[in-house]
Amino acid sequence: MFEAKFQTFDDASERDKSAARVAALRAELKRRGLTGFVVPRADRQQNEYLPASEERLAWLTGFTGSAGAAVVLADKAAVFVDGRYTVQAESQVDKSVFAIEHLVDTPPNQWLAKNAKAGDRIGYDPWLHTSESVERLKQAAADAGAELVALDGNPIDALWRDRPAPPSGKVVLRDIALAGESASDKLKRVRAELDKAKVDALVVSDPQNVAWTFNIRGSDIAHTPLALAFALIPREGRPRLYVEPGKLDNTTRAALEDIADIRTPDDLTHDLAGLKDKSVRLDQASAVEALSKIVTEHGGKPTRAADPITLMKAVKNHAEISGTRAAHLRDGAAMTRFLAWLDGEALKGKLTEIDAVAALESFRRDTGLLKDVSFPTISGAGPNGAIVHYRVTRESNRKLGMNELFLIDSGAQYEDGTTDITRTIVVGEPSEEMRDRFTRVLKGHIGIATAVYPENTTGAQLDTLARASLWQAGLDFDHGTGHGVGSYLSVHEGPARISKLGHVALRRGMILSNEPGYYKTAAYGIRIENLVLVIAAPEPAGAEKPLNAFETLTLAPIDRRLVDVNMLAAKERHWLDSYHGRVNAEIAPLVDAETRAWLEAATKPL
Amino acid sequence: MFEAKFQTFDDASERDKSAARVAALRAELKRRGLTGFVVPRADRQQNEYLPASEERLAWLTGFTGSAGAAVVLADKAAVFVDGRYTVQAESQVDKSVFAIEHLVDTPPNQWLAKNAKAGDRIGYDPWLHTSESVERLKQAAADAGAELVALDGNPIDALWRDRPAPPSGKVVLRDIALAGESASDKLKRVRAELDKAKVDALVVSDPQNVAWTFNIRGSDIAHTPLALAFALIPREGRPRLYVEPGKLDNTTRAALEDIADIRTPDDLTHDLAGLKDKSVRLDQASAVEALSKIVTEHGGKPTRAADPITLMKAVKNHAEISGTRAAHLRDGAAMTRFLAWLDGEALKGKLTEIDAVAALESFRRDTGLLKDVSFPTISGAGPNGAIVHYRVTRESNRKLGMNELFLIDSGAQYEDGTTDITRTIVVGEPSEEMRDRFTRVLKGHIGIATAVYPENTTGAQLDTLARASLWQAGLDFDHGTGHGVGSYLSVHEGPARISKLGHVALRRGMILSNEPGYYKTAAYGIRIENLVLVIAAPEPAGAEKPLNAFETLTLAPIDRRLVDVNMLAAKERHWLDSYHGRVNAEIAPLVDAETRAWLEAATKPL
Repeated sequence: MFEAKFQTFDDASERDKSAARVAALRAELKRRGLTGFVVPRADRQQNEYLPASEERLAWLTGFTGSAGAAVVLADKAAVFVDGRYTVQAESQVDKSVFAIEHLVDTPPNQWLAKNAKAGDRIGYDPWLHTSESVERLKQAAADAGAELVALDGNPIDALWRDRPAPPSGKVVLRDIALAGESASDKLKRVRAELDKAKVDALVVSDPQNVAWTFNIRGSDIAHTPLALAFALIPREGRPRLYVEPGKLDNTTRAALEDIADIRTPDDLTHDLAGLKDKSVRLDQASAVEALSKIVTEHGGKPTRAADPITLMKAVKNHAEISGTRAAHLRDGAAMTRFLAWLDGEALKGKLTEIDAVAALESFRRDTGLLKDVSFPTISGAGPNGAIVHYRVTRESNRKLGMNELFLIDSGAQYEDGTTDITRTIVVGEPSEEMRDRFTRVLKGHIGIATAVYPENTTGAQLDTLARASLWQAGLDFDHGTGHGVGSYLSVHEGPARISKLGHVALRRGMILSNEPGYYKTAAYGIRIENLVLVIAAPEPAGAEKPLNAFETLTLAPIDRRLVDVNMLAAKERHWLDSYHGRVNAEIAPLVDAETRAWLEAATKPL
Repeated sequence: MFEAKFQTFDDASERDKSAARVAALRAELKRRGLTGFVVPRADRQQNEYLPASEERLAWLTGFTGSAGAAVVLADKAAVFVDGRYTVQAESQVDKSVFAIEHLVDTPPNQWLAKNAKAGDRIGYDPWLHTSESVERLKQAAADAGAELVALDGNPIDALWRDRPAPPSGKVVLRDIALAGESASDKLKRVRAELDKAKVDALVVSDPQNVAWTFNIRGSDIAHTPLALAFALIPREGRPRLYVEPGKLDNTTRAALEDIADIRTPDDLTHDLAGLKDKSVRLDQASAVEALSKIVTEHGGKPTRAADPITLMKAVKNHAEISGTRAAHLRDGAAMTRFLAWLDGEALKGKLTEIDAVAALESFRRDTGLLKDVSFPTISGAGPNGAIVHYRVTRESNRKLGMNELFLIDSGAQYEDGTTDITRTIVVGEPSEEMRDRFTRVLKGHIGIATAVYPENTTGAQLDTLARASLWQAGLDFDHGTGHGVGSYLSVHEGPARISKLGHVALRRGMILSNEPGYYKTAAYGIRIENLVLVIAAPEPAGAEKPLNAFETLTLAPIDRRLVDVNMLAAKERHWLDSYHGRVNAEIAPLVDAETRAWLEAATKPL
């Protein structure tokens, strides 16, 4: 059968060990004259996926979700998880040791303000928190009469015997044909931004931004081809790139030395200390407090704001767009093979969520170009589909049931582009309610896909178009409509998004997801996700301002059996038919005859 | 013929005197050891309409628009106006004395940073600026090496010989039948808010909030029934109301003394000085710097944030909603008489913009209940309609031309409610383009009127619904879609609005305008404005969250001759037909036979 190589289905929680580990931590804290410690799920660069060596939260608490935190005090402790992870935390966390709190409703700072005692000395690792996070914790500690103390070494690292070694993935140069712009040209543009902002130097702490600027990719992190590296870009003079020497072979090193001084990560502290009297831009989102402290303590003037590279990187150039189109064509063929296969297999009644993940990954591997999945596939049958960030394990694994919905959200990393697609499929016959809900979600999807809007419109202004049809029925979905997507980089990329919080203007060349959904708890989940590219819209006669629109990049059938055609306006129906026409025309030549026959039927006009 | 009593058409600019006045001001500044002075268009309570005694900007510069500022330095001076007023400023301002700058693009602080000299001492009147405004000016002065100096007395007042006396309008009590809640109950709710916010006392500096809380109305300001009064509401103990004694008759005074200590405005400074160690909430939008200074200097702890009354006042109770419905019925009848009359008169070719203003006001006065217009009527024929905040003068007055559009935006103050309505009428035959644009604006209007949305949705989330149809054609309008409206109070009321900046959740009982438009410079303007009330939407079967919707309050025909029915979706057409059916049913019984016949035709289904 099929096999998944980029994703596991084990529950990695070491729940049984957390009581002893917390006891050891408390002893270690006491030894250091502390009464508490804050443990974020974070590394030095605030990555979304962490290297195993940085999974301190999981080590201490047993909780393995992708977002969370813990606070340990002398006599109580809490793990903080958001709504996606409450069920998982219940099973992974030893509740005799930790209370489980809601990361958003009662975040660590609020909990601290209430639970810390006057005189408490609560430690934190300044290499793992942004300054904003430290500010909030400091205020909370002060409210309780306690003190927040920056520590020199992380006490967990002192206790963690079998801690994995930090990753040492090789760094490779990105082909200029794929990058579309040389690193030296990019550096010129970055310096122009520093000039405009009157900043003497930029600390590039987001490894995505390092990768983009220097046209490098790495393999330190699962699902995202990043090297854990920093950079320091002065307004004048040579940039510096901080990376473990072992990650560079001679060719790569030589190429990078053409444009930058290559230094080790340990040199960063030293170099930051040399910025006396300089204004230093630190990225608000990814720069940790330790970086600010070093600059400040040595007489530099740090300003925290968005790293300008984040916006530059989001606007894709011609080569990146061509690459992404090729990636979506390839991925659409793999996805279509998967959907055709699924339609045959699912009705036999034996297929599980894990089988589906493995099959889809195999079809993608068959392309010969799959580097990784862009995130662990969300494969939810029936009620599991209603868990927005569901991740199947051997324990939760469920068969695709008859007359149920199956939601699969997945993506691929190819060298020419990153994909992200969600399809919702019915096995057997949908209920009327399912068709109603699916069609409302589809109308929202089409509302975004066909939107036409003036330049400088933000994602916040468009988000409502994805919801209006659900609102009419008293329904909604509790996540944003879309996120930015990188170019063989992170599948979640800033700064633009389609959400009521998306206050960045959409610019031509940005790639975003379009993924409205609907989730009926304990029953089923629906999501329809394509990636879209911001393009210039054709200019109508008499137009007074430049218009933008979206081009849909993703190519795979949307399940027609779930569409109630009577609910669609003529232009909505036309969109789906013409999208399907395009999918058929582009994908049919890339798949086998059997799949082609299935595709032909799956893309027929409504 | 008809006469307008609440609005003038004169250009009140004293342009010719400004050179001498500026010279006198410079001499006065020199005498005080200053080299410059900042003149905002503002009074002590940041009112939208100013009493004549507060029109310092107009006195000094000749500019009479409703927003602006000036800065006078030793050797240069500038007047700052926004895009609405550039034409007017060109004619009213003596350009040998003042440069004209853009209030938004190069505001006074930016201009100061560039034009002030090192060592300059620039005065400002701390009673006329909010703290936020002072902060910006201070920073700008510092950037230029200059100093911003708070003055004890306003130097213009020392020079302004024939300065009008401050207003002394009588204060009247608002009938509980109209207010719907007693002042003492309101005060209880305000105190509960202070309790929640852990604030010891609230300074009520917005006279709208004073009027609402104490159930009083005044006549110190044109178009808004306000008394210039402050209040101080402690979390515990009796509130204090600061108002000129001459404004209160014995009955009113006695009634107010039941709930508050009545003091003179001069006592406010003394009482604020008594708040040592207390946390004092100052309204971010309306509290001037002088108030913050007094509190701080006497050991109080001011916090600047939104006055909680602003939100409380925006949510109308049953009595206020009933009153507003009655006001709209009455106003709709007057408006309908006006539209019927206009249709007959305009074709004769002699009618002017001023005639239209006078006629509409007369029809409203005929109700016997008109207290004031709620703002100076915007009456724009042909190209004047494209000037968003056009105010007709005898010089600009234009005849309503054949085959042109005429835009009229007006409102009334009745004791039971405040109205605001815009209609766009064609005289003769519209062009195809006019019908296309009008229909797009109408589709936007209907998009808002028929919106259904979950509780806690903000105006920012709905704004796009008013624009999507214009966007499709590469068009847009450069103002928000809607503002809050008071209950026999200001026609522009916070905190909610329908605009991309409207981040306050819409709550049931709020009244807002729904006024998308389109403006073709030098050609015509289109705006369709009704007031809407946020109500609970009928709950569809299976709804998972409480839904809100808008009830349209305004009742007057929308010009059917401008609608291209082929551009309307079935449900849009249905909305207009059923709105017109309702207008006919409710207004017909209130108007004369001739108007009734016209109304019948004007509200026929499309």
